Amino acid sequence: MILILQSKATDDQVDHVIEKVESLGLKAHLSRGTYRTIVGIIGDESKLSEERLRSIPGVSEVVPVLPPYKLASLEAHPEPSVVNVSGVQIGGGHLGMIAGPCSVEDADRMHRIAKSVRDAGANLFRGGAYKPRTSPYAFQGLGEDGLKILREVGDEYGMPIVTEVTDPRNVELVAKYADMLQVGARNMQNFVLLTEVGKTSRPVLLKRGMSATIKDLLMSAEYVLSQGNPNVVLCERGIKGFDTITRNLFDVAAVPAVKALTHLPIIVDPSHATGRPDLIPPCALAGIAAGADGVHVEVHDCPEEAKSDGPQALLPDQYQELAKQMRQLAELFQKTISPLPEALA
Amino acid sequence: MILILQSKATDDQVDHVIEKVESLGLKAHLSRGTYRTIVGIIGDESKLSEERLRSIPGVSEVVPVLPPYKLASLEAHPEPSVVNVSGVQIGGGHLGMIAGPCSVEDADRMHRIAKSVRDAGANLFRGGAYKPRTSPYAFQGLGEDGLKILREVGDEYGMPIVTEVTDPRNVELVAKYADMLQVGARNMQNFVLLTEVGKTSRPVLLKRGMSATIKDLLMSAEYVLSQGNPNVVLCERGIKGFDTITRNLFDVAAVPAVKALTHLPIIVDPSHATGRPDLIPPCALAGIAAGADGVHVEVHDCPEEAKSDGPQALLPDQYQELAKQMRQLAELFQKTISPLPEALA
Amino acid sequence: MILILQSKATDDQVDHVIEKVESLGLKAHLSRGTYRTIVGIIGDESKLSEERLRSIPGVSEVVPVLPPYKLASLEAHPEPSVVNVSGVQIGGGHLGMIAGPCSVEDADRMHRIAKSVRDAGANLFRGGAYKPRTSPYAFQGLGEDGLKILREVGDEYGMPIVTEVTDPRNVELVAKYADMLQVGARNMQNFVLLTEVGKTSRPVLLKRGMSATIKDLLMSAEYVLSQGNPNVVLCERGIKGFDTITRNLFDVAAVPAVKALTHLPIIVDPSHATGRPDLIPPCALAGIAAGADGVHVEVHDCPEEAKSDGPQALLPDQYQELAKQMRQLAELFQKTISPLPEALA
Amino acid sequence: MILILQSKATDDQVDHVIEKVESLGLKAHLSRGTYRTIVGIIGDESKLSEERLRSIPGVSEVVPVLPPYKLASLEAHPEPSVVNVSGVQIGGGHLGMIAGPCSVEDADRMHRIAKSVRDAGANLFRGGAYKPRTSPYAFQGLGEDGLKILREVGDEYGMPIVTEVTDPRNVELVAKYADMLQVGARNMQNFVLLTEVGKTSRPVLLKRGMSATIKDLLMSAEYVLSQGNPNVVLCERGIKGFDTITRNLFDVAAVPAVKALTHLPIIVDPSHATGRPDLIPPCALAGIAAGADGVHVEVHDCPEEAKSDGPQALLPDQYQELAKQMRQLAELFQKTISPLPEALA
Repeated sequence: MILILQSKATDDQVDHVIEKVESLGLKAHLSRGTYRTIVGIIGDESKLSEERLRSIPGVSEVVPVLPPYKLASLEAHPEPSVVNVSGVQIGGGHLGMIAGPCSVEDADRMHRIAKSVRDAGANLFRGGAYKPRTSPYAFQGLGEDGLKILREVGDEYGMPIVTEVTDPRNVELVAKYADMLQVGARNMQNFVLLTEVGKTSRPVLLKRGMSATIKDLLMSAEYVLSQGNPNVVLCERGIKGFDTITRNLFDVAAVPAVKALTHLPIIVDPSHATGRPDLIPPCALAGIAAGADGVHVEVHDCPEEAKSDGPQALLPDQYQELAKQMRQLAELFQKTISPLPEALA
Repeated sequence: MILILQSKATDDQVDHVIEKVESLGLKAHLSRGTYRTIVGIIGDESKLSEERLRSIPGVSEVVPVLPPYKLASLEAHPEPSVVNVSGVQIGGGHLGMIAGPCSVEDADRMHRIAKSVRDAGANLFRGGAYKPRTSPYAFQGLGEDGLKILREVGDEYGMPIVTEVTDPRNVELVAKYADMLQVGARNMQNFVLLTEVGKTSRPVLLKRGMSATIKDLLMSAEYVLSQGNPNVVLCERGIKGFDTITRNLFDVAAVPAVKALTHLPIIVDPSHATGRPDLIPPCALAGIAAGADGVHVEVHDCPEEAKSDGPQALLPDQYQELAKQMRQLAELFQKTISPLPEALA
Repeated sequence: MILILQSKATDDQVDHVIEKVESLGLKAHLSRGTYRTIVGIIGDESKLSEERLRSIPGVSEVVPVLPPYKLASLEAHPEPSVVNVSGVQIGGGHLGMIAGPCSVEDADRMHRIAKSVRDAGANLFRGGAYKPRTSPYAFQGLGEDGLKILREVGDEYGMPIVTEVTDPRNVELVAKYADMLQVGARNMQNFVLLTEVGKTSRPVLLKRGMSATIKDLLMSAEYVLSQGNPNVVLCERGIKGFDTITRNLFDVAAVPAVKALTHLPIIVDPSHATGRPDLIPPCALAGIAAGADGVHVEVHDCPEEAKSDGPQALLPDQYQELAKQMRQLAELFQKTISPLPEALA
Repeated sequence: MILILQSKATDDQVDHVIEKVESLGLKAHLSRGTYRTIVGIIGDESKLSEERLRSIPGVSEVVPVLPPYKLASLEAHPEPSVVNVSGVQIGGGHLGMIAGPCSVEDADRMHRIAKSVRDAGANLFRGGAYKPRTSPYAFQGLGEDGLKILREVGDEYGMPIVTEVTDPRNVELVAKYADMLQVGARNMQNFVLLTEVGKTSRPVLLKRGMSATIKDLLMSAEYVLSQGNPNVVLCERGIKGFDTITRNLFDVAAVPAVKALTHLPIIVDPSHATGRPDLIPPCALAGIAAGADGVHVEVHDCPEEAKSDGPQALLPDQYQELAKQMRQLAELFQKTISPLPEALA
């Protein structure tokens, strides 16, 4: 850490800062400039709390020099991680192609949609059985019945399945059925839930919160990693913006910005990011061009009957067309798309 | 609802829209303008899903005419609600004066701080036993031991206590000790948690999420209300902004904007909103001038030793000075501050 | 400046940084930490460009230690400035009470509105003769005819007048008629215009841009000050936010945050900040409670006929009621409101 | 327009609304729902001011049904426009490849950079002679001397040149030297400047303001178009965001969102959008994948000596590599890149 003292810091305050640092078993390196005094702290920074240092009288700013997300950092793991979802790889040159409806609905529809996205080239099937809905009066998901449908459909078409978990009490149950656990944007800083999914061995799809900085996202990933689960895939799905023309603001630069800081894979979700079917294909392609390790797209065969988020789903034909373009881009950028696994792990 | 069709909507699409509306048992009222066709839907709007309507081909925009938060709306309850927290009233002309440290720490310190804020005029004592921390390596709170300390301190100084609950599995436990349950900003859309606190009879302090619109906040309150718990107090605590000069962006206009839509009380939290002790007093006063039903301030007697959020706490003396000014403003605006209850409920 | 080097900076890069600093006649003070190397630069920082330093290979971050707005800073002028607008004082304990319609309209209406706001207690009259309108098809203002009406009305009621200037070619013309020149939010970084108003001796009302940080605002003030015009009053009028419930997001904390950095007065404009007449009074009062040096309110006697911004104007009666409350607050906070000048300067 | 009345609107207010609409020579179509009354306005909407309608007592919301940017809309011009910049085409399948330093510096350096970007495949050369700088103490550009250098370099290498104009008094002068006039982000709502560039026949590169919605951007384009200049190219260059990890927030979805509303071409500027050389290539490629009509990149051969914005420039070698990838993407998406013109127009 580096402490920048206030221009009016008194000699007593400077002495107090140094004592404080030394009382923690660290060395303080004083540098008096023309206008400001700087204290460099030498030693094991992990013992220090930025907040407490900022509370010491006379301290103006605290500049950390090490990232606070240790396990997620490139310093800890310089090579890109590859996350294996029951045989489908994401990261390190492998693109995850996740598709499916927002919510799990009746089994027939799930079969139809799964078949269509599998035929189009998706290698992971998604659907929500527990839906975090803004309104208490909206459809909340089919619960365990939905999980059963998902599992059956995944098995039939040979696709690993991804589904959201919203309640720490359900983590074990969801992990029994699903190949990958999704933590949604609204739960990105639900640390209780992160801790529970960190205790499982299922890969986790961690969506960025709407007001989360990239550092916040990595800190949330760190919660999962620090519990012993190294299989985290990040997801940029749009942040809060001021223009209501799109549902959220797709921060495509987050893809390379994340890759400059962490070894974890990052995919994009243009469905939630834009909320408009006409914008999903260009944004999906933009995501791959920016280096994303996969694309998550909502697909429904009759959006006006969808139990949730119909307006942001592609029709199966539209997904097929998009998937073709995504494969062309993948080839251009020398990315691989895992085939469906022989057998689900 | 009003549906505005796309300028290119075909006659078939218009017919399909009308059929759809009528199939739901509602009447469609068609109005063909020079450039656009409008469909007014007449009947019980609560049967309709805005999302599904937006997914019908040819529909451009859906304009709801009723607020989706039914119980929270002024239509449902035109007079301001007064929430009673074990004898201390908030709302309807009564100001809640909540003060205390960010985290519950050792009992001696809690006693000292509680005494100081009670003597200054606070009528509710706060402290966190379960702390949602950005870093998994930071202090996570004392847990049930912290709740015990809080209860003991509250009883000794006759102050009802407010504390955060972060885990649906702990709601019952926390409700056993606390007079008011806080749901923090990061959990504002943790619908599982909202549902659980809605099942208790404890008053709930619901903090606005950092990227939540006012409508989002009211929808989250609706979750609690719809479970049968009518005692919700909202809290503006700063939203995400682009200027790093303050920790968050204090949206003081949210106070009167919320009051134009709901009967629920709303208080302000200038500690989290600004993250700077020098800005807490002016923003606390601004909140009262804007009509807030209370002020939540973090107070610590040695911020550099605080286990969390030291930089945004006032010292006891500073709080005493602020409380005096808040009382003067309250008098000017003819607001009342409940005295401490004879006995805690 | 303090340079924080990248963790991977090579010895050659460190040497190059030091050479670079010394080549500018400054001293470099090297501090090697466990993980990072820090270079403190000692000497006259004003010679340095933050951008260039950040471009040197191996440099990770540049932390300035002096504010880049020299004349506007408290270091340059520790006491609050009082700006005198033809006899009406703003700042240093004096509240400016600015009121009037958005646009200058016909003379009769201007007389009526001016009389009503003067009787209510306003001491500065505003109206726009050159209107920056989002649409090229909207009313663009009466131009010089509007300035003449304003001047005549100001003279009749003894009120100094404030009006916007949008074109560097018109600055001299507007300054001939007006007592105070307004630079609008959309022109806050129109540096050509700032330079021109800086060459006049008229006080300048500088509105904060919708995406301007407080530092940006102070840098724009510096443009005016550096041309020799010290009479700048800043104005918080709402910044861009994500919730469309208000027109802009009223950043009331900017008032004390600005005062912690500069001697210049800062007023608030709740009309533009909220865009809703029902929110103007609570936000005006919040502004004063937060320490603002004045309040700018739009007033119109028939908003539905206003040539611009009708929806955000108060009716004369509403302004009268608000002005009464503002005076009560002013008294509580021991602020003074200049009476109208005997004769306009 | 559609007026949605307040739920409490009285019969007198409804009557007054209808009278008002009819007094403007339009027809009002009343639709009374269960909870709300709606007034559809039939006739020539261009006579109506949304603001005034919103000011009528009893009106709750005003929903426009026609875009307010008439000339820029797809309704006015359904086919994509192709803008011809002295022989280089942008739009309608033609990619503009704009490259060059932030500021025009000495002639030797300009020659070197121009040669390098031309050899890499750029077809337009950029450089600023008038620089809008946040600080009055920073380098403000070489002025007319800079324009002369640019012109000379453009002629030597056969590249049309793009340069910024910041002052309405200089438009004619800049138009004498430049092939394309840039209006910068900070001047996007400098309507005086937009009007002046609209009076020239030079193509205009209009950058999106940092807090501008897409509608705002199109309204600003409309200023130029309404003056008779149809040659406007829009540019997404990042908007204001809350994460300081990038300089701005690159809104790549704006590219297809703009194309859904207007015939005008839109390019991207990943240099300003990200402010980081490592993020420029992925974001440039994302822009093309999302459908952009060109890419604007800053290139400098020694960023640490650049007179402005060094940290966001690519080195010539980096640009060469990126240009190669951009050409591959262009081919995949069947886009054309105009060769340099035989002779500059």
